Amino acid sequence: MSKRTEKTIVDIAEELQLSVSTVSRALNDHPNISARTKERVKKTARKLGYRPNALAAGLRNNKSKTIGLIVPRISMFFPATISTIIQNKLQEFGYNLIICQSNDSYEQEVALVNTLYSARVDGLVVSTTLYTTDFSHFDVFRDNNIPLVFFDRVPKDYNVKVIKGDDYRGGYIGTTHLIEKGCKDIVHISGPLTCCLYSDRVAGYKSALQEFKLPFKKSRVFYQELTKENAWQTCEKIFSQKPYPDGIFASNDTTAITISEYCRSIHLRVPEDVKIVGYSNDPRTEIVSPAVSSVDQYPGMMGERVVAVLMEMINGRQTAVPRYSQEIIPIQLIERQSSAGKVKAGKKKLSLS
Amino acid sequence: MSKRTEKTIVDIAEELQLSVSTVSRALNDHPNISARTKERVKKTARKLGYRPNALAAGLRNNKSKTIGLIVPRISMFFPATISTIIQNKLQEFGYNLIICQSNDSYEQEVALVNTLYSARVDGLVVSTTLYTTDFSHFDVFRDNNIPLVFFDRVPKDYNVKVIKGDDYRGGYIGTTHLIEKGCKDIVHISGPLTCCLYSDRVAGYKSALQEFKLPFKKSRVFYQELTKENAWQTCEKIFSQKPYPDGIFASNDTTAITISEYCRSIHLRVPEDVKIVGYSNDPRTEIVSPAVSSVDQYPGMMGERVVAVLMEMINGRQTAVPRYSQEIIPIQLIERQSSAGKVKAGKKKLSLS
Repeated sequence: MSKRTEKTIVDIAEELQLSVSTVSRALNDHPNISARTKERVKKTARKLGYRPNALAAGLRNNKSKTIGLIVPRISMFFPATISTIIQNKLQEFGYNLIICQSNDSYEQEVALVNTLYSARVDGLVVSTTLYTTDFSHFDVFRDNNIPLVFFDRVPKDYNVKVIKGDDYRGGYIGTTHLIEKGCKDIVHISGPLTCCLYSDRVAGYKSALQEFKLPFKKSRVFYQELTKENAWQTCEKIFSQKPYPDGIFASNDTTAITISEYCRSIHLRVPEDVKIVGYSNDPRTEIVSPAVSSVDQYPGMMGERVVAVLMEMINGRQTAVPRYSQEIIPIQLIERQSSAGKVKAGKKKLSLS
Repeated sequence: MSKRTEKTIVDIAEELQLSVSTVSRALNDHPNISARTKERVKKTARKLGYRPNALAAGLRNNKSKTIGLIVPRISMFFPATISTIIQNKLQEFGYNLIICQSNDSYEQEVALVNTLYSARVDGLVVSTTLYTTDFSHFDVFRDNNIPLVFFDRVPKDYNVKVIKGDDYRGGYIGTTHLIEKGCKDIVHISGPLTCCLYSDRVAGYKSALQEFKLPFKKSRVFYQELTKENAWQTCEKIFSQKPYPDGIFASNDTTAITISEYCRSIHLRVPEDVKIVGYSNDPRTEIVSPAVSSVDQYPGMMGERVVAVLMEMINGRQTAVPRYSQEIIPIQLIERQSSAGKVKAGKKKLSLS
């Protein structure tokens, strides 16, 4: 039932007995064409089901006025928030946004890159899957000078512009905060190391421990997709034998909130028995009881920088195919009840600024 | 910097000294073409930056294998969840999904319909803005027999297929539950009546009150965009004068959770002083304390039906341009602590089934 024949401006011109160039100019709101003719042309275009030929439009002005965005999952706070910020900012420049989710599947990401390329977007913004280590499916954008910007989950050695949070510092600050509050045995729950933001946070965790002369134990770091189910299972493992950790630093808030729920289920008190810090400052951290401390990534700032860089590329003020260049967005720790406690006297003074 | 010249299969054929038909068949994985030739053609296509011409592809097989989805906001639980369900289901049929958010702006919705039409999607799935009452911007899909399905927020008098929750019954059940728990003065906080799902829920609220001989008072119903800020302000209004309501039924969970927070801030106990029921069964209702009762809309079932109907249209087993037809997805009340209480003896027996 969905068979359709594509109509061109030639069909519109024939129908209205106008020249093709008049129809073309009418469709493009040329000032020399009368309002009445423009209206007739547009009405007929609608009637015939004419779709502006993106190919021809591309040759004429290189603009579809649409940007593509690929994120892992829109159900997660951080990508959902930053998608909306990017969309609102793009709108100020007259661009629409189409959003695709990779569901953390490399194969889906590859397919979506091709879909968005065929949809003739003017630029592509990407936060990769957890498992993307080969980036050659993005070559088609690079090779054709179509602006390409990565944020949050970014490549490490692929020549593009990347905008990311200060994940090393986030790992360092989250861990240091727990140490400052008296924790001596801190578990870290990380995403997979294929995704460089997690390896950066692990590095920050490690150097905080070293700075305070606490041992780094491989058995105290867990790598996993940071889902609720995985968090629960990992808690079962962690709390199946003593000694229990006195602090847990989780690389996302779903995990941190689930740890808190688990602790309640086995009658451990948060923060008295176990202190918890999460990552991303998801609004849920504020509504749970106790409220969960978290590392905030300034999604507003990150989204605005993504659009600013993209627009500089689109407008030719910055090359669309840069060498690798990294822009780091700051982070801040938001302290809440889950990690509350007295700073012990006589401890080494911390400089968190 | 982003200037690009579009390459066609003619360029590929010239570069490789092959016939155009060989190139075309190689790109389409025709069995008569050798693997080696296919690889050479595809490599050259990549090198030249060839984009499959969607227009030509459309003429050939009418399929871009991409579906467009427009939702109000992906940061909301219900649209985010159903988007993912639709995407996963579409993938089984070999279709990709591109998602756009209208941000509840009619103008953005109009622009996005055109963007997705120009991107040559094979079908369009829509949950409208709160304020869409004129649906003529969707005519371009209808007029060209491109499958179009609405869900959740749907038109009332526009000839399309709509799949929606049982909002009348949701309003009825949410209210009846509060009455059953002893409430006699129930406030309802609704979205704007321009969106028919809210008017259906108000109608359900009204008929529950009537059935139990409780007065319906216009002053006890509030219409607003269901944001946290609006919920807080409405609470300030509601609780600025006595008598306080003993039950509040909110048309989303953000509102229900905020009401609970507000009650705590003025030392009212939930559920003892005020009982609360929300709508959508957002996972946040489970993690707050007290947990919030909510009307679940079975997003899984709704998403699966959307894809099933869309695929029937795409495969021609159902007309792409139906008369108005409505499919209703059931709802269920999830009882939690926020509306707990004893059923009073001697009250009229309820039939909630």
